[in-house]
Amino acid sequence: MKDKILISEVGPRDGLQNCKGVMPTDVKKRWVKGLYDAGVREIEVGSFVPPKLFPQLADTAEIVAFAKTLPGLTVLALIPNFRGAQAALDAGVDAVTLPLSASETHSLKNMRQTHDQVIENVKSIRTLFDASSNPPRFEAGVSTAFGCSIEGHVPEAKVISLGERLVEAGVDELGLSDTVGYANPLQIKSMIKSMRDAVGQEKVKSVHLHNTYGLGIANAFSAYEEGIEVFDSSQGGLGGCPASPGASGNIVTEDLVYMFEAMGVDTGIDLDHLMACRKYLEEGLPGEPVYGFTPNAGLPKTYSVS
Amino acid sequence: MKDKILISEVGPRDGLQNCKGVMPTDVKKRWVKGLYDAGVREIEVGSFVPPKLFPQLADTAEIVAFAKTLPGLTVLALIPNFRGAQAALDAGVDAVTLPLSASETHSLKNMRQTHDQVIENVKSIRTLFDASSNPPRFEAGVSTAFGCSIEGHVPEAKVISLGERLVEAGVDELGLSDTVGYANPLQIKSMIKSMRDAVGQEKVKSVHLHNTYGLGIANAFSAYEEGIEVFDSSQGGLGGCPASPGASGNIVTEDLVYMFEAMGVDTGIDLDHLMACRKYLEEGLPGEPVYGFTPNAGLPKTYSVS
Repeated sequence: MKDKILISEVGPRDGLQNCKGVMPTDVKKRWVKGLYDAGVREIEVGSFVPPKLFPQLADTAEIVAFAKTLPGLTVLALIPNFRGAQAALDAGVDAVTLPLSASETHSLKNMRQTHDQVIENVKSIRTLFDASSNPPRFEAGVSTAFGCSIEGHVPEAKVISLGERLVEAGVDELGLSDTVGYANPLQIKSMIKSMRDAVGQEKVKSVHLHNTYGLGIANAFSAYEEGIEVFDSSQGGLGGCPASPGASGNIVTEDLVYMFEAMGVDTGIDLDHLMACRKYLEEGLPGEPVYGFTPNAGLPKTYSVS
Repeated sequence: MKDKILISEVGPRDGLQNCKGVMPTDVKKRWVKGLYDAGVREIEVGSFVPPKLFPQLADTAEIVAFAKTLPGLTVLALIPNFRGAQAALDAGVDAVTLPLSASETHSLKNMRQTHDQVIENVKSIRTLFDASSNPPRFEAGVSTAFGCSIEGHVPEAKVISLGERLVEAGVDELGLSDTVGYANPLQIKSMIKSMRDAVGQEKVKSVHLHNTYGLGIANAFSAYEEGIEVFDSSQGGLGGCPASPGASGNIVTEDLVYMFEAMGVDTGIDLDHLMACRKYLEEGLPGEPVYGFTPNAGLPKTYSVS
């Protein structure tokens, strides 16, 4: 198994998007810088969506510009459509991620797009990026890949078929997203294996997990065993879904780093330094609940900095 | 991998032992009955320890007598020494578990016994049980097997050597206990494999996990992959250790059942019924915090009763 993995911090996008408060731009920059100083080398810094819908992410272009000054950091942004892709290209991101919800009901509700429409968007965006001298890496995240709070069960075959269509339409990589936290560790292994068999091992590098049922870290371990090397997570488990009572946010970056480092798997992240960055959440989002077993318990005696 | 596992509920012992309040005996009986009705088939109902030290468990003999009226339930109790073994035998338990702390510092602090003293106790208890017409199953739990909050790192070789001595001294089975929640999933696999190599596969059946660093469920999954078939857990994650700030209790039974059933692994437990038993905690231990992602989120659409 791999002795090094990459943690892709999604708090500034997935986390903030689901918070009631709006983090001030200057705090957001200090948070991004703090994460970088702690050793985080990929951050999803925002989303190119209409500011009217997501005022929390209205400063994404400015955050991208700031994050691009940090050497060696992969600056990622979410894009919902062609217009977002254009804005991301103009802002100079290193990578974009476009979500396609395997549950078409969810896709219509969340993005107002059918599967066919999303695939057409991907083709147009591929053309746009191919015409650029410096195209970003183009990822698609297959969301609700392990179940949907509206449709319920999502068949694996449907997810695989959508993955194939996305790759054919021109994305560089696929991520598998457990948007509502329904996945279990055996399902994770099965889906990764099937998707890799379908589109090629090198195309399936990342998982995006939520912790609604407390299985998020177990799912991450299972994905690691299956060869996944990029893990999305959010500092303090920020996020959650306002539409799903009891649903929790992304898996907690602090706990994820703890697990990998305790196992001797290098994340490149200094956990003490990372935990200190929780102060930016308190400053920029006063009253917002933050989570994490490791920050609550404090590092154990057996933990040694790698 | 196994399509059926056993969950051994330890809330009435490990949970209650670490709570400030004392659950009234009649509530405890209704809780045990409720767990049984939900499908739980092994319960650690108490501990034969001095009532002055643990008033929460002073009614253990009465709870054993009650639990023994429930057909098919394995009634387990903890014993710290020979006197406890005698009391357990008199009470008619089905099984006893005796802890030996791999960290000798912890053993002296917790049980006032050196390793040699514990091994001598095991030999005496074996003799006692062999003279009985109906001896209980005799387990030993190797506690702090994955690290100790006092000693820190506990070498695997030391744990294995103690396991060998316990088996030689006459225990029927060994459990591996992550008393302070320091274990990680790779360490779990390595320890199970090494211990089974040393004492025989059939002797190592159970793990006892805590969730201090949020890795408890991931550790359970890892142990399942390694062939473990008995998992200790506590309803509501009851417990924790008053001496360890931030330390959390046992892994949450509700979340553990959720994971296994979601993976198609039969626990025999009706999760709705199990979650309804949380009312006994509220009644018998008002104000005591209870945990669990699954109870907070509610069962998802994809969950079907097995």
